[in-house]
Amino acid sequence: MHTAIWSAKERVVIGPDQPVVIIGERINPTGRPRLAAALQAGDMAPLQSEALRQARAGAAVLDVNVGVAGIDEPAALAAAVRAVGEVCGTPLCLDSASPQALEAALAAYPGKALVNSVNGEEAKLREVLPLVARYKAAVVALTMDGRGVPTDADSRLAIAERILDEAARLGIPAEDVVLDPLAMSVAADDQAGLVVLTAMQAIRDRLGVNQTVGAGNVSFGLPERPAVGAVFLAMAVLRGCTCPITDPTVWELKRALLVSDLLLGRDEYAMRFIGAYRQHEEEI
Amino acid sequence: MHTAIWSAKERVVIGPDQPVVIIGERINPTGRPRLAAALQAGDMAPLQSEALRQARAGAAVLDVNVGVAGIDEPAALAAAVRAVGEVCGTPLCLDSASPQALEAALAAYPGKALVNSVNGEEAKLREVLPLVARYKAAVVALTMDGRGVPTDADSRLAIAERILDEAARLGIPAEDVVLDPLAMSVAADDQAGLVVLTAMQAIRDRLGVNQTVGAGNVSFGLPERPAVGAVFLAMAVLRGCTCPITDPTVWELKRALLVSDLLLGRDEYAMRFIGAYRQHEEEI
Repeated sequence: MHTAIWSAKERVVIGPDQPVVIIGERINPTGRPRLAAALQAGDMAPLQSEALRQARAGAAVLDVNVGVAGIDEPAALAAAVRAVGEVCGTPLCLDSASPQALEAALAAYPGKALVNSVNGEEAKLREVLPLVARYKAAVVALTMDGRGVPTDADSRLAIAERILDEAARLGIPAEDVVLDPLAMSVAADDQAGLVVLTAMQAIRDRLGVNQTVGAGNVSFGLPERPAVGAVFLAMAVLRGCTCPITDPTVWELKRALLVSDLLLGRDEYAMRFIGAYRQHEEEI
Repeated sequence: MHTAIWSAKERVVIGPDQPVVIIGERINPTGRPRLAAALQAGDMAPLQSEALRQARAGAAVLDVNVGVAGIDEPAALAAAVRAVGEVCGTPLCLDSASPQALEAALAAYPGKALVNSVNGEEAKLREVLPLVARYKAAVVALTMDGRGVPTDADSRLAIAERILDEAARLGIPAEDVVLDPLAMSVAADDQAGLVVLTAMQAIRDRLGVNQTVGAGNVSFGLPERPAVGAVFLAMAVLRGCTCPITDPTVWELKRALLVSDLLLGRDEYAMRFIGAYRQHEEEI
């Protein structure tokens, strides 16, 4: 199944027969005080430079999140979308917990965006999916609901099915729903890796939709976090994750995704891996 | 399915519900002139120190190969088996292209060894399998035959089935055959990774036997070889490789296997990963 999204300038196709699509996660003020301060001051220059930096590092989609205390999030997310679009043609993933902010960003975005995110909660389904349908966008669907994140794979699959059903009812095709089976910390729960990888396989085999996942949580509380994230991303790709959300400027993570493509026969003559390696060598 | 092998002092169980078993590959003179020279001089001390070093680094089985020009291989392999056994209780994988050397080593080994290797060639089947049966050993079976290594996964599966049939005919149970689906260089053939990973899945799903694989070939001719090997090992483990043959003293490779166990729920409280990380930090 193919998920296509686009900006005014570029189109990206996500699918199991395509190279891995990296959704760059760096435009997000959480834990980044300087980016947060710039956003609060209405200064979009740091966002623009993060956009360019990630696009150069291989992000095919850019997540844009401006969630910071005291901000007018609808206005700020729309402004961020315009500011990024001024410098960079990469398609965007509009990331907010606020439906109002998502709507303002969708209205400001000249293309088909990925909306981040809906989940199985009634309120989310009711508020976010109609927006996705109206703007003919695609949407990231988290396998959690009002009771939190299920600790077993079957319940995550059930939530995924529920969201897909609800999406279909509103005319959103399955190919426009990108599942996120939610990687949690293996330091907190030593079965967390197995559960998300099992959920991923079930979603791939039973639903066939594209999947994203973040590699940050899984290594939380452990040493060697980039290495843990790299192994997790490789396993996730093998299990059907087609568009991870990660930091393409961290070479260990990007390398793991490039090597994954290479080992899965999706990098002719190893050109992409070798090209990225040379670019990395020049930059360090 | 469980494959058990043992020395006079230790027993190892290989299986999909067990942590990954590392077969240490360093006792091998190929490309190691100092080890080769020591073997030619009949000096077993370097072998003994390689054995101890790998056991400390987490190898649960040690491959012993003494194939070097001008050596009396049957006598040398038997002597190596005895020499390693003097210093180290780790079970052994007896590695030789010579059936005479394998027989001498089996006779000298006080336990149940893993024999490395048989393949689908008539001569190999005829010479090696009866030894495995007579000594009640286990055996590594390479998915190649007189025509070389097939470039497709189905043909590798067919060779695996053929070897298992022949083994069964001689009274060797399937659990004592460890398949090696043969990782080749992805720099030479960009489909080589996909083929071996596909063969691995087919062997796991259809035959259910344990599998080994080497991570060296796959990265041959590429930059960042340990990182490529690490991603390959993680994917191999996810596809059913239960006892890779690799170098446990290379932290990138060992770490990938520890993280694989952790992400597959086989490392309670992440104790093995964190313990190995601390040991690594002390040693560097």
